Amino acid sequence: MAAPGSTERTTLKRIAHKASFSQQELYRILDSNLVAHVGIIFDDAPLVIPMTYGRVGNTLYLHGSSGSRLMRALAQNPKVCISITKLNALKVARSTFNSGMNYDAAVIFGEAKLVADDKKAWALDAISDAILPGRMQEVRPSTKKEAAATVIIEIELDETSVKISNGVVEDEPEDLGTGVWAGLVPLRTVVGEPTPADAETAALELPASVKRFISDYPDNRLRNS
Amino acid sequence: MAAPGSTERTTLKRIAHKASFSQQELYRILDSNLVAHVGIIFDDAPLVIPMTYGRVGNTLYLHGSSGSRLMRALAQNPKVCISITKLNALKVARSTFNSGMNYDAAVIFGEAKLVADDKKAWALDAISDAILPGRMQEVRPSTKKEAAATVIIEIELDETSVKISNGVVEDEPEDLGTGVWAGLVPLRTVVGEPTPADAETAALELPASVKRFISDYPDNRLRNS
Repeated sequence: MAAPGSTERTTLKRIAHKASFSQQELYRILDSNLVAHVGIIFDDAPLVIPMTYGRVGNTLYLHGSSGSRLMRALAQNPKVCISITKLNALKVARSTFNSGMNYDAAVIFGEAKLVADDKKAWALDAISDAILPGRMQEVRPSTKKEAAATVIIEIELDETSVKISNGVVEDEPEDLGTGVWAGLVPLRTVVGEPTPADAETAALELPASVKRFISDYPDNRLRNS
Repeated sequence: MAAPGSTERTTLKRIAHKASFSQQELYRILDSNLVAHVGIIFDDAPLVIPMTYGRVGNTLYLHGSSGSRLMRALAQNPKVCISITKLNALKVARSTFNSGMNYDAAVIFGEAKLVADDKKAWALDAISDAILPGRMQEVRPSTKKEAAATVIIEIELDETSVKISNGVVEDEPEDLGTGVWAGLVPLRTVVGEPTPADAETAALELPASVKRFISDYPDNRLRNS
């Protein structure tokens, strides 16, 4: 499988056995998570903001209010680093030094490009559909006013780094047999019972998009398997 | 309650009703989460790396390998922005425009300072104890060699921004009564059943630290309440 790209700009790469550079794994991490931490340079200092996102093919889309400082800052300095992380377990070793975490991590480097006005409605729908697949078929289209109030940027997934740490606990030989427990403590993100917004929606059946979100959510699948 | 500080450097502040600047909320977000996204400037570009951390009083501690590029980069340009986010729900409105997320978000701005050698062992223990409280009482102390292999930095929590979005769905009047479902879809991070590392630890009782981690984990408490 082709690597989606690599970079010299991350320290994580040093830990070679944790690295997986497959495009499939990058896409899986992006598609199964909801929040990205977006880093830019603003006033000569780093700024990291959590944002939702949507992936379409090899492009990542972010959206924000057209009045947002982040969006205006990106227009002036488009260099961006986007980090998406899913923690899967505490790795509890017999020493704190060998303890750690199991996680999926994707880091994306690139230049943010403004999505042109005539592509905005499409991109808005694409982001919505990436967050809650199928929702676009259940709601009205966005209005021109709503699109005008939104700024959308795109980043090509050409320079990326994927690390998957799913190792077992590794202890020093001298720490074995000392009566100290070691093991993995799994962490899972699960979807709870939806709560309707009001009496009107309480009388409606859950929409297909929400039902599918619940049944397809990675850790829900784990829980149900 | 005194605000822990504020900043002009985040776009999120624009949404005033989402803002909560209390120190108590900042500490709650830091203490109930495990991963921070740490942003620095490296080679004139932003770099965002996920890291574990520990809070002691009004100071945040990060640790990494002494060979790590991030740690060396911070020594040269100590400006740092650290973002910690917990997603709590999808807010599914009758339009995609009014849909969003409920979340807790903390953003910290500061200058990373290297922790001096004679404070390193203490800081290592403090980070371990913040991640898994009580674990220090169950394992051997770190060795000098282990401390030497680690670089620890500290950031004062003086310039911070806390946003808690826990709103209900708000729809346009014209979208009401259209037969479209709206509501909150909660997301919870829960701790699963620990798996022992090997036959030796399988024969041991779960340690108090792990038992307490499971019972005190915020969403586990929610689940059990």
